[in-house]
Amino acid sequence: MSSLLKKEGGDGLTPIGQIGVAALIERITTNVVHRQTSTRQGVGDDAARIQSIPGEEWVVSTDLMVEGVHFDTTYFPLRHLGYKLVVAGISDVVAMNAVPRQILLGLAISAKYTVEAVEELYKGVHAACADYGVDLVGGDVTSSTGGLTLSVTAIGSAPADRLVGRTGARKGELICVSGDLGAAFMGLNLLEREKRIYREDPGIQPDFGAYEYLLQRQIRPAARTDMSSIFDTIGCIPTSLIDLSSGLGHDIAALCRASGVGCRLYEDRIPIDPQVRELATQFQIDPTLCALSGGEDYELLFTLPSSLSDKFEGHPDICMLGYITDAEDGQILVSHSGQEHELHRRMYTH
Amino acid sequence: MSSLLKKEGGDGLTPIGQIGVAALIERITTNVVHRQTSTRQGVGDDAARIQSIPGEEWVVSTDLMVEGVHFDTTYFPLRHLGYKLVVAGISDVVAMNAVPRQILLGLAISAKYTVEAVEELYKGVHAACADYGVDLVGGDVTSSTGGLTLSVTAIGSAPADRLVGRTGARKGELICVSGDLGAAFMGLNLLEREKRIYREDPGIQPDFGAYEYLLQRQIRPAARTDMSSIFDTIGCIPTSLIDLSSGLGHDIAALCRASGVGCRLYEDRIPIDPQVRELATQFQIDPTLCALSGGEDYELLFTLPSSLSDKFEGHPDICMLGYITDAEDGQILVSHSGQEHELHRRMYTH
Repeated sequence: MSSLLKKEGGDGLTPIGQIGVAALIERITTNVVHRQTSTRQGVGDDAARIQSIPGEEWVVSTDLMVEGVHFDTTYFPLRHLGYKLVVAGISDVVAMNAVPRQILLGLAISAKYTVEAVEELYKGVHAACADYGVDLVGGDVTSSTGGLTLSVTAIGSAPADRLVGRTGARKGELICVSGDLGAAFMGLNLLEREKRIYREDPGIQPDFGAYEYLLQRQIRPAARTDMSSIFDTIGCIPTSLIDLSSGLGHDIAALCRASGVGCRLYEDRIPIDPQVRELATQFQIDPTLCALSGGEDYELLFTLPSSLSDKFEGHPDICMLGYITDAEDGQILVSHSGQEHELHRRMYTH
Repeated sequence: MSSLLKKEGGDGLTPIGQIGVAALIERITTNVVHRQTSTRQGVGDDAARIQSIPGEEWVVSTDLMVEGVHFDTTYFPLRHLGYKLVVAGISDVVAMNAVPRQILLGLAISAKYTVEAVEELYKGVHAACADYGVDLVGGDVTSSTGGLTLSVTAIGSAPADRLVGRTGARKGELICVSGDLGAAFMGLNLLEREKRIYREDPGIQPDFGAYEYLLQRQIRPAARTDMSSIFDTIGCIPTSLIDLSSGLGHDIAALCRASGVGCRLYEDRIPIDPQVRELATQFQIDPTLCALSGGEDYELLFTLPSSLSDKFEGHPDICMLGYITDAEDGQILVSHSGQEHELHRRMYTH
């Protein structure tokens, strides 16, 4: 566990005030590489310059991550936090079926953080930028009276007729999801447990043993940039699309609201990894609840015309969960035993 | 003063938890108007959609404002804070000589704030959007464990050959500034004084008397979107450009660093409003220091070829402060008495 803990002072660590914010920004942005031809100018001026891509439309989103709300730096390594911040931004772009291209970061940081801590965070940022081929083109660093607050602005593009929003789902269409759900949430539970154990006895090292997958899903999530080409392969663009950042239950509700429809999901169909089931049982949590309310899976939830079902049936990256209904039919979860539940009740009563 | 103070609970105020973040976002974004034809889709999806403008390049910047660092809500009205946040973002776009078009906001907010407080903040946001013709196209609202942290992402565009950065200043060029400097800083001092008086005796109402201009410069700043057409009128685009958000001393230093040059400024030439001089004398602050270190003026600092001096001499919106030198000549301020000071020394030793 100790290596995951933020060091509280000690040899060789530099208070940010010692070098100043300007020098800090220079340190964390000197090695910035531009991979996108649309990036005309990045960090270092009042604003970044981005060239239009002929025939493409831009998509832009912004997200905040707040210490004590979205992350706990006592067990969440700063490098992974930087990585996850970028992934969260990219995931919003992917959720429009666009290609992520640039990001801008904001960092409000309290005096307890050192220059080395910020460098650690940016190592993760740069690693994610490299993995996804996006350019860090701007940002802001400022002091904070509280903890650490991070903002990410993500920019992407695609031809207008490829972009997919939340409003296009229609009755009878199939509701699908990429990957499996609930693992990031169980990873968080695992980290919380190890934190408690560590606090009681700092001599005990954490044992993530058989649950490495859950840990990875929490501290090094992935944005599904691969799905766009999978849609191409099966020969269809989804009619609606959203990323699963808040949990299946919340996100399908948002999609249904935006499209003015209802849904019918089958609990049997929700893809849940065996590690999630096993640890959930240990923790006495309902695995379905992990998928519905856990969040941070960054998988994609989307709708496809039912006529295309034979094209993606059995596809390893696509699970069919149910179908779209009329709005007045509500948002329904059909349980393992065949009982119908209103989705929002199932999300809180277990 | 009382009307400037945030209410701590009381009749008719709604805790955010009572309606939830989704309903809050709906409340503050229902009346959003789009004025830019490039805005294809705004708030309500994973990302906003923005159409390319033929022949134009995009500029994007992001800024953070943190309670207790950048603002004090005990005397800074939330409506004005929202307005100022948008202006700060727009000013970065203007500092590239681009036209501001879209903004995205992030809001991390603690439990002490009510739904009504957030609505107040957004009234200011919407007012600024209307004043500057920009579209609020996205954002994020989340809870915070500390106070209020705000992020703004500002997007603008212009033909590539009209965009101006910080790197183009060359030896012999004239250093110019729009408007007057130091007033926002003195406005802040004024508010701090009235806060102290109010705390000692809440019965005393604040008296901003003869200093209304200073107060306005602090709580309702303006971005110099008008300067671009002034540049057109005098028939030249600046060789370098930066907005004065950190104070003349810091911002000219940033411009010199980026351009690899030095500067020679004349204290006599720094435009300072009589109200600033008067209150600075009362407060025993050097008025020049207000201009050099105060910040938040959101005026533009720019360089022009000396051959054009007759074209803008006497222009009411342009003051010539000095000229660009070689980097090795340093950043020099020539004082009223004709003495030469290194600029950074003058910024802290008074």
